[in-house]
Amino acid sequence: MKTVTDEEAARHKAKMAKRKAVQDAEVASKTVEKGLLIVNTGPGKGKTTAAFGLALRMLGHGKRVGVVQFVKGAWHSGERDAFAAFGDRVVWHSMGEGFTWETQDLARDIAAAQAAWAKAGELLADPTIGLVVLDELNIALRYDYLDLVSVVETLKGRRGDLHVVVTGRNAKPALVEAADLVTEMGATKHHFAAGVKAQQGIEF
Amino acid sequence: MKTVTDEEAARHKAKMAKRKAVQDAEVASKTVEKGLLIVNTGPGKGKTTAAFGLALRMLGHGKRVGVVQFVKGAWHSGERDAFAAFGDRVVWHSMGEGFTWETQDLARDIAAAQAAWAKAGELLADPTIGLVVLDELNIALRYDYLDLVSVVETLKGRRGDLHVVVTGRNAKPALVEAADLVTEMGATKHHFAAGVKAQQGIEF
Repeated sequence: MKTVTDEEAARHKAKMAKRKAVQDAEVASKTVEKGLLIVNTGPGKGKTTAAFGLALRMLGHGKRVGVVQFVKGAWHSGERDAFAAFGDRVVWHSMGEGFTWETQDLARDIAAAQAAWAKAGELLADPTIGLVVLDELNIALRYDYLDLVSVVETLKGRRGDLHVVVTGRNAKPALVEAADLVTEMGATKHHFAAGVKAQQGIEF
Repeated sequence: MKTVTDEEAARHKAKMAKRKAVQDAEVASKTVEKGLLIVNTGPGKGKTTAAFGLALRMLGHGKRVGVVQFVKGAWHSGERDAFAAFGDRVVWHSMGEGFTWETQDLARDIAAAQAAWAKAGELLADPTIGLVVLDELNIALRYDYLDLVSVVETLKGRRGDLHVVVTGRNAKPALVEAADLVTEMGATKHHFAAGVKAQQGIEF
Protein backbone atom coordinates (compact mmCIF):
# COMPACT_ATOMS: atom_id res chain seq x y z
CA MET A 1 0.00 0.00 0.00
CA LYS A 2 1.47 3.28 -1.09
CA THR A 3 1.59 6.71 0.45
CA VAL A 4 2.04 9.41 -2.17
CA THR A 5 4.47 12.32 -1.90
CA ASP A 6 3.80 15.56 -3.79
CA GLU A 7 6.68 14.80 -6.09
CA GLU A 8 5.36 11.33 -6.89
CA ALA A 9 1.90 12.75 -7.48
CA ALA A 10 3.26 15.32 -9.94
CA ARG A 11 5.40 12.73 -11.75
CA HIS A 12 2.42 10.37 -11.98
CA LYS A 13 0.18 13.13 -13.34
CA ALA A 14 2.68 14.08 -16.05
CA LYS A 15 3.20 10.44 -17.06
CA MET A 16 -0.55 9.78 -17.20
CA ALA A 17 -1.20 12.94 -19.21
CA LYS A 18 1.26 11.63 -21.82
CA ARG A 19 -0.32 8.20 -21.71
CA LYS A 20 -3.77 9.73 -22.15
CA ALA A 21 -2.60 11.52 -25.29
CA VAL A 22 -1.37 8.21 -26.71
CA GLN A 23 -4.58 6.41 -25.74
CA ASP A 24 -6.80 9.16 -27.16
CA ALA A 25 -4.91 9.09 -30.47
CA GLU A 26 -5.26 5.32 -30.57
CA VAL A 27 -9.00 5.44 -29.86
CA ALA A 28 -9.46 8.18 -32.50
CA SER A 29 -7.66 6.02 -35.09
CA LYS A 30 -10.28 3.29 -34.76
CA THR A 31 -13.36 4.28 -36.71
CA VAL A 32 -14.79 1.08 -38.14
CA GLU A 33 -18.06 -0.27 -36.75
CA LYS A 34 -19.02 -3.76 -37.83
CA GLY A 35 -20.53 -6.97 -36.68
CA LEU A 36 -17.69 -9.17 -35.45
CA LEU A 37 -17.02 -12.83 -36.04
CA ILE A 38 -15.59 -13.90 -32.67
CA VAL A 39 -13.93 -17.25 -31.92
CA ASN A 40 -13.28 -18.47 -28.34
CA THR A 41 -11.03 -21.50 -28.50
CA GLY A 42 -8.20 -23.21 -26.62
CA PRO A 43 -8.04 -25.81 -23.84
CA GLY A 44 -8.76 -23.41 -20.94
CA LYS A 45 -12.01 -22.59 -19.21
CA GLY A 46 -14.06 -19.56 -20.23
CA LYS A 47 -14.91 -20.13 -23.89
CA THR A 48 -18.64 -20.58 -23.37
CA THR A 49 -18.93 -18.39 -20.28
CA ALA A 50 -17.26 -15.48 -22.12
CA ALA A 51 -19.75 -15.92 -24.96
CA PHE A 52 -22.62 -15.78 -22.48
CA GLY A 53 -21.08 -12.76 -20.74
CA LEU A 54 -21.12 -11.01 -24.11
CA ALA A 55 -24.73 -12.07 -24.61
CA LEU A 56 -25.55 -10.48 -21.27
CA ARG A 57 -23.84 -7.25 -22.32
CA MET A 58 -25.93 -7.23 -25.52
CA LEU A 59 -29.12 -7.83 -23.55
CA GLY A 60 -28.19 -4.91 -21.30
CA HIS A 61 -28.18 -2.70 -24.38
CA GLY A 62 -31.65 -3.86 -25.34
CA LYS A 63 -30.56 -6.23 -28.12
CA ARG A 64 -31.89 -9.71 -28.82
CA VAL A 65 -29.63 -12.77 -28.66
CA GLY A 66 -29.76 -16.20 -30.30
CA VAL A 67 -28.01 -19.31 -28.98
CA VAL A 68 -27.47 -22.71 -30.57
CA GLN A 69 -25.74 -25.39 -28.51
CA PHE A 70 -24.12 -27.98 -30.78
CA VAL A 71 -22.98 -30.43 -28.10
CA LYS A 72 -24.62 -29.52 -24.84
CA GLY A 73 -28.32 -29.90 -24.54
CA ALA A 74 -28.70 -33.38 -23.18
CA TRP A 75 -28.23 -31.97 -19.68
CA HIS A 76 -29.52 -29.02 -17.72
CA SER A 77 -27.46 -25.84 -17.36
CA GLY A 78 -27.66 -22.82 -15.09
CA GLU A 79 -27.17 -20.34 -17.91
CA ARG A 80 -30.26 -21.52 -19.71
CA ASP A 81 -32.41 -20.93 -16.62
CA ALA A 82 -30.81 -17.53 -16.05
CA PHE A 83 -31.46 -16.36 -19.62
CA ALA A 84 -35.14 -17.15 -19.07
CA ALA A 85 -35.23 -13.86 -17.10
CA PHE A 86 -35.00 -12.07 -20.47
CA GLY A 87 -38.07 -13.76 -21.93
CA ASP A 88 -38.28 -13.83 -25.75
CA ARG A 89 -35.22 -11.58 -26.08
CA VAL A 90 -33.18 -14.78 -25.91
CA VAL A 91 -33.88 -17.46 -28.53
CA TRP A 92 -32.30 -20.69 -27.31
CA HIS A 93 -31.83 -23.98 -29.14
CA SER A 94 -30.09 -26.83 -27.31
CA MET A 95 -29.52 -29.20 -30.19
CA GLY A 96 -26.75 -31.36 -28.79
CA GLU A 97 -27.22 -34.95 -27.76
CA GLY A 98 -24.26 -34.89 -25.40
CA PHE A 99 -20.66 -35.91 -25.84
CA THR A 100 -19.90 -38.24 -28.69
CA TRP A 101 -18.67 -40.90 -26.23
CA GLU A 102 -22.11 -40.81 -24.61
CA THR A 103 -24.15 -41.22 -27.78
CA GLN A 104 -21.69 -43.70 -29.37
CA ASP A 105 -23.67 -43.19 -32.56
CA LEU A 106 -21.86 -41.41 -35.38
CA ALA A 107 -24.86 -41.07 -37.70
CA ARG A 108 -26.91 -39.59 -34.86
CA ASP A 109 -24.14 -37.11 -33.97
CA ILE A 110 -23.92 -35.96 -37.59
CA ALA A 111 -27.69 -35.58 -37.86
CA ALA A 112 -27.76 -33.58 -34.62
CA ALA A 113 -24.98 -31.25 -35.87
CA GLN A 114 -26.82 -30.69 -39.13
CA ALA A 115 -30.09 -29.95 -37.36
CA ALA A 116 -28.23 -27.49 -35.10
CA TRP A 117 -26.66 -25.79 -38.11
CA ALA A 118 -30.10 -25.42 -39.69
CA LYS A 119 -31.28 -23.63 -36.52
CA ALA A 120 -28.15 -21.46 -36.65
CA GLY A 121 -29.11 -20.49 -40.21
CA GLU A 122 -32.51 -19.29 -38.98
CA LEU A 123 -30.94 -17.15 -36.26
CA LEU A 124 -28.32 -15.70 -38.63
CA ALA A 125 -31.14 -14.64 -40.96
CA ASP A 126 -33.24 -13.04 -38.22
CA PRO A 127 -32.96 -9.23 -38.53
CA THR A 128 -34.14 -8.70 -34.92
CA ILE A 129 -31.12 -10.50 -33.44
CA GLY A 130 -27.88 -8.64 -32.59
CA LEU A 131 -25.69 -11.53 -31.44
CA VAL A 132 -25.70 -15.23 -32.29
CA VAL A 133 -23.78 -17.65 -30.05
CA LEU A 134 -22.81 -20.93 -31.76
CA ASP A 135 -21.69 -22.88 -28.72
CA GLU A 136 -19.28 -25.76 -29.48
CA LEU A 137 -19.67 -25.35 -33.25
CA ASN A 138 -15.90 -25.96 -33.38
CA ILE A 139 -16.47 -29.52 -32.19
CA ALA A 140 -18.90 -30.25 -35.02
CA LEU A 141 -16.40 -28.77 -37.50
CA ARG A 142 -13.46 -30.67 -36.06
CA TYR A 143 -15.15 -34.02 -36.63
CA ASP A 144 -16.35 -33.00 -40.11
CA TYR A 145 -19.98 -33.31 -39.10
CA LEU A 146 -20.52 -30.13 -41.11
CA ASP A 147 -18.92 -28.84 -44.30
CA LEU A 148 -16.26 -26.34 -43.20
CA VAL A 149 -16.20 -24.30 -46.41
CA SER A 150 -19.94 -23.78 -46.46
CA VAL A 151 -20.09 -22.94 -42.72
CA VAL A 152 -17.32 -20.33 -43.08
CA GLU A 153 -18.95 -18.84 -46.20
CA THR A 154 -22.30 -18.56 -44.42
CA LEU A 155 -20.67 -16.85 -41.42
CA LYS A 156 -18.76 -14.44 -43.68
CA GLY A 157 -21.95 -13.64 -45.56
CA ARG A 158 -23.78 -12.57 -42.40
CA ARG A 159 -25.56 -9.20 -42.05
CA GLY A 160 -23.02 -6.38 -41.70
CA ASP A 161 -23.91 -5.46 -38.12
CA LEU A 162 -24.48 -8.97 -36.79
CA HIS A 163 -22.05 -10.25 -34.15
CA VAL A 164 -21.41 -14.00 -33.97
CA VAL A 165 -19.47 -15.93 -31.33
CA VAL A 166 -18.24 -19.45 -32.08
CA THR A 167 -16.89 -21.52 -29.18
CA GLY A 168 -15.08 -24.80 -28.72
CA ARG A 169 -11.56 -26.22 -28.72
CA ASN A 170 -9.47 -26.71 -31.83
CA ALA A 171 -10.97 -23.97 -34.01
CA LYS A 172 -10.27 -24.73 -37.68
CA PRO A 173 -7.66 -22.48 -39.33
CA ALA A 174 -10.14 -21.40 -42.02
CA LEU A 175 -12.50 -20.13 -39.31
CA VAL A 176 -9.68 -18.32 -37.48
CA GLU A 177 -8.70 -16.75 -40.81
CA ALA A 178 -12.25 -15.48 -41.36
CA ALA A 179 -12.68 -14.18 -37.79
CA ASP A 180 -12.24 -10.61 -36.51
CA LEU A 181 -11.43 -11.58 -32.93
CA VAL A 182 -9.90 -14.85 -31.78
CA THR A 183 -9.13 -15.60 -28.15
CA GLU A 184 -7.21 -18.70 -27.12
CA MET A 185 -8.12 -19.68 -23.57
CA GLY A 186 -5.02 -21.27 -22.05
CA ALA A 187 -5.28 -23.56 -19.02
CA THR A 188 -2.50 -22.21 -16.80
CA LYS A 189 -3.91 -24.13 -13.86
CA HIS A 190 -7.02 -26.32 -13.65
CA HIS A 191 -8.81 -27.57 -10.56
CA PHE A 192 -9.72 -30.90 -12.20
CA ALA A 193 -6.02 -31.79 -11.91
CA ALA A 194 -6.37 -31.37 -8.13
CA GLY A 195 -9.26 -33.84 -8.00
CA VAL A 196 -12.01 -31.22 -7.82
CA LYS A 197 -15.19 -32.41 -9.50
CA ALA A 198 -17.51 -30.51 -11.86
CA GLN A 199 -19.65 -28.28 -9.66
CA GLN A 200 -23.00 -26.54 -10.06
CA GLY A 201 -22.56 -22.94 -11.14
CA ILE A 202 -18.97 -23.52 -12.25
CA GLU A 203 -19.06 -26.19 -14.93
CA PHE A 204 -22.80 -26.31 -15.67
CA MET B 1 -20.26 -33.76 -44.42
CA LYS B 2 -19.97 -37.47 -43.82
CA THR B 3 -22.04 -40.42 -44.84
CA VAL B 4 -21.60 -43.30 -42.46
CA THR B 5 -21.09 -46.93 -43.53
CA ASP B 6 -22.06 -49.78 -41.20
CA GLU B 7 -18.40 -50.58 -40.69
CA GLU B 8 -17.57 -46.98 -39.75
CA ALA B 9 -20.53 -46.85 -37.39
CA ALA B 10 -19.38 -50.03 -35.62
CA ARG B 11 -15.77 -48.83 -35.38
CA HIS B 12 -16.95 -45.47 -34.03
CA LYS B 13 -19.17 -47.16 -31.44
CA ALA B 14 -16.34 -49.38 -30.18
CA LYS B 15 -13.94 -46.46 -29.98
CA MET B 16 -16.42 -44.28 -28.13
CA ALA B 17 -17.32 -47.08 -25.70
CA LYS B 18 -13.61 -47.25 -24.78
CA ARG B 19 -13.43 -43.49 -24.49
CA LYS B 20 -16.51 -43.45 -22.29
CA ALA B 21 -14.85 -45.92 -19.90
CA VAL B 22 -11.82 -43.63 -19.66
CA GLN B 23 -13.99 -40.53 -19.16
CA ASP B 24 -16.16 -42.22 -16.54
CA ALA B 25 -13.10 -43.33 -14.57
CA GLU B 26 -11.72 -39.81 -14.74
CA VAL B 27 -14.98 -38.25 -13.54
CA ALA B 28 -15.21 -40.81 -10.72
CA SER B 29 -11.66 -39.94 -9.59
CA LYS B 30 -12.69 -36.33 -8.92
CA THR B 31 -14.52 -36.16 -5.64
CA VAL B 32 -13.57 -32.84 -4.05
CA GLU B 33 -16.19 -30.09 -3.83
CA LYS B 34 -14.93 -26.67 -2.84
CA GLY B 35 -15.29 -23.00 -3.50
CA LEU B 36 -12.78 -22.10 -6.18
CA LEU B 37 -10.44 -19.15 -6.43
CA ILE B 38 -10.51 -18.42 -10.15
CA VAL B 39 -8.19 -16.01 -12.00
CA ASN B 40 -8.91 -14.78 -15.55
CA THR B 41 -5.82 -13.03 -16.86
CA GLY B 42 -3.82 -12.46 -20.06
CA PRO B 43 -3.97 -9.88 -22.85
CA GLY B 44 -6.92 -11.37 -24.74
CA LYS B 45 -10.59 -10.56 -24.58
CA GLY B 46 -12.96 -12.53 -22.34
CA LYS B 47 -11.60 -12.09 -18.82
CA THR B 48 -14.53 -10.03 -17.53
CA THR B 49 -17.16 -11.52 -19.83
CA ALA B 50 -16.22 -15.05 -18.70
CA ALA B 51 -16.58 -13.93 -15.07
CA PHE B 52 -20.03 -12.57 -15.82
CA GLY B 53 -20.96 -15.72 -17.73
CA LEU B 54 -20.09 -17.67 -14.59
CA ALA B 55 -22.19 -15.25 -12.52
CA LEU B 56 -25.10 -15.94 -14.85
CA ARG B 57 -24.64 -19.68 -14.39
CA MET B 58 -24.71 -19.20 -10.59
CA LEU B 59 -27.84 -17.09 -10.83
CA GLY B 60 -29.44 -19.82 -12.91
CA HIS B 61 -28.89 -22.18 -10.00
CA GLY B 62 -30.60 -19.78 -7.61
CA LYS B 63 -27.42 -18.46 -5.99
CA ARG B 64 -26.64 -14.83 -5.13
CA VAL B 65 -23.69 -13.03 -6.73
CA GLY B 66 -21.55 -10.08 -5.63
CA VAL B 67 -19.53 -7.87 -7.99
CA VAL B 68 -16.91 -5.23 -7.26
CA GLN B 69 -15.44 -3.31 -10.18
CA PHE B 70 -12.01 -1.94 -9.30
CA VAL B 71 -11.39 0.11 -12.46
CA LYS B 72 -14.61 0.32 -14.41
CA GLY B 73 -17.45 2.27 -12.91
CA ALA B 74 -16.90 5.72 -14.35
CA TRP B 75 -18.86 4.67 -17.42
CA HIS B 76 -22.02 2.80 -18.13
CA SER B 77 -21.97 -0.88 -19.08
CA GLY B 78 -24.49 -3.23 -20.62
CA GLU B 79 -23.80 -6.01 -18.12
CA ARG B 80 -24.83 -3.86 -15.19
CA ASP B 81 -28.20 -3.12 -16.78
CA ALA B 82 -28.67 -6.78 -17.65
CA PHE B 83 -27.95 -7.97 -14.11
CA ALA B 84 -30.72 -5.66 -12.89
CA ALA B 85 -33.11 -8.34 -14.18
CA PHE B 86 -32.07 -10.44 -11.16
CA GLY B 87 -32.99 -7.79 -8.57
CA ASP B 88 -31.29 -8.09 -5.19
CA ARG B 89 -29.74 -11.45 -6.11
CA VAL B 90 -26.90 -9.40 -7.62
CA VAL B 91 -25.03 -7.00 -5.31
CA TRP B 92 -23.05 -4.62 -7.53
CA HIS B 93 -20.42 -2.08 -6.53
CA SER B 94 -18.77 -0.04 -9.29
CA MET B 95 -15.93 1.52 -7.33
CA GLY B 96 -13.57 2.45 -10.16
CA GLU B 97 -12.92 5.99 -11.23
CA GLY B 98 -11.82 4.96 -14.72
CA PHE B 99 -8.42 4.28 -16.19
CA THR B 100 -5.45 5.73 -14.37
CA TRP B 101 -4.60 7.91 -17.40
CA GLU B 102 -8.05 9.46 -17.12
CA THR B 103 -7.92 10.33 -13.43
CA GLN B 104 -4.21 11.32 -13.52
CA ASP B 105 -4.40 11.33 -9.74
CA LEU B 106 -2.40 8.64 -7.96
CA ALA B 107 -3.72 9.33 -4.45
CA ARG B 108 -7.29 9.19 -5.75
CA ASP B 109 -6.64 5.91 -7.59
CA ILE B 110 -5.21 4.37 -4.42
CA ALA B 111 -8.12 5.58 -2.31
CA ALA B 112 -10.59 4.18 -4.87
CA ALA B 113 -8.84 0.78 -4.85
CA GLN B 114 -8.91 0.66 -1.07
CA ALA B 115 -12.58 1.60 -0.93
CA ALA B 116 -13.28 -1.13 -3.50
CA TRP B 117 -11.35 -3.68 -1.46
CA ALA B 118 -13.39 -2.73 1.63
CA LYS B 119 -16.57 -3.49 -0.35
CA ALA B 120 -15.01 -6.76 -1.50
CA GLY B 121 -14.45 -7.66 2.16
CA GLU B 122 -18.16 -7.15 2.88
CA LEU B 123 -19.16 -9.42 0.00
CA LEU B 124 -16.62 -12.11 0.95
CA ALA B 125 -18.11 -12.13 4.46
CA ASP B 126 -21.73 -12.36 3.28
CA PRO B 127 -22.97 -15.95 3.86
CA THR B 128 -25.83 -15.50 1.36
CA ILE B 129 -23.48 -14.99 -1.60
CA GLY B 130 -22.20 -17.94 -3.67
CA LEU B 131 -19.84 -16.14 -6.06
CA VAL B 132 -17.89 -12.91 -5.76
CA VAL B 133 -16.47 -11.28 -8.92
CA LEU B 134 -13.52 -8.94 -8.27
CA ASP B 135 -13.30 -7.29 -11.68
CA GLU B 136 -9.86 -5.83 -12.52
CA LEU B 137 -8.51 -6.47 -9.01
CA ASN B 138 -5.30 -7.53 -10.80
CA ILE B 139 -4.80 -3.94 -11.97
CA ALA B 140 -4.98 -2.58 -8.40
CA LEU B 141 -2.51 -5.26 -7.29
CA ARG B 142 -0.16 -4.63 -10.19
CA TYR B 143 0.25 -0.96 -9.25
CA ASP B 144 0.57 -1.77 -5.54
CA TYR B 145 -2.58 0.14 -4.69
CA LEU B 146 -3.36 -2.73 -2.32
CA ASP B 147 -1.13 -4.93 -0.19
CA LEU B 148 -0.68 -8.17 -2.13
CA VAL B 149 0.04 -10.41 0.86
CA SER B 150 -3.01 -9.29 2.77
CA VAL B 151 -5.29 -9.56 -0.30
CA VAL B 152 -4.10 -13.12 -1.03
CA GLU B 153 -4.46 -14.12 2.64
CA THR B 154 -8.01 -12.76 2.73
CA LEU B 155 -8.92 -14.63 -0.45
CA LYS B 156 -7.39 -17.87 0.85
CA GLY B 157 -9.29 -17.43 4.13
CA ARG B 158 -12.66 -17.26 2.40
CA ARG B 159 -15.61 -19.49 3.35
CA GLY B 160 -15.01 -23.07 2.15
CA ASP B 161 -17.81 -23.12 -0.42
CA LEU B 162 -17.43 -19.56 -1.71
CA HIS B 163 -16.30 -19.14 -5.33
CA VAL B 164 -14.30 -16.02 -6.23
CA VAL B 165 -13.28 -14.79 -9.68
CA VAL B 166 -10.47 -12.25 -10.04
CA THR B 167 -9.97 -10.61 -13.45
CA GLY B 168 -7.40 -8.37 -15.10
CA ARG B 169 -4.11 -8.58 -16.96
CA ASN B 170 -0.81 -9.39 -15.32
CA ALA B 171 -2.04 -11.48 -12.39
CA LYS B 172 0.57 -11.51 -9.64
CA PRO B 173 2.42 -14.85 -9.21
CA ALA B 174 1.35 -15.07 -5.54
CA LEU B 175 -2.30 -14.89 -6.61
CA VAL B 176 -1.78 -17.49 -9.36
CA GLU B 177 -0.09 -19.72 -6.77
CA ALA B 178 -3.09 -19.41 -4.42
CA ALA B 179 -5.68 -19.98 -7.16
CA ASP B 180 -7.47 -23.23 -8.05
CA LEU B 181 -8.17 -22.29 -11.67
CA VAL B 182 -6.17 -19.87 -13.79
CA THR B 183 -7.03 -19.09 -17.40
CA GLU B 184 -4.74 -17.01 -19.58
CA MET B 185 -6.73 -15.32 -22.34
CA GLY B 186 -4.42 -15.03 -25.33
CA ALA B 187 -5.14 -12.52 -28.11
CA THR B 188 -4.62 -14.66 -31.21
CA LYS B 189 -6.32 -11.98 -33.32
CA HIS B 190 -7.88 -8.68 -32.24
CA HIS B 191 -10.23 -6.44 -34.20
CA PHE B 192 -8.72 -3.24 -32.72
CA ALA B 193 -5.64 -3.97 -34.86
CA ALA B 194 -7.91 -3.76 -37.92
CA GLY B 195 -9.16 -0.30 -36.94
CA VAL B 196 -12.45 -1.49 -35.45
CA LYS B 197 -13.61 0.73 -32.57
CA ALA B 198 -15.04 -0.25 -29.21
CA GLN B 199 -18.68 -1.11 -29.82
CA GLN B 200 -21.78 -1.29 -27.67
CA GLY B 201 -22.45 -4.83 -26.51
CA ILE B 202 -18.92 -5.98 -27.36
CA GLU B 203 -16.57 -3.83 -25.28
CA PHE B 204 -19.04 -2.24 -22.87
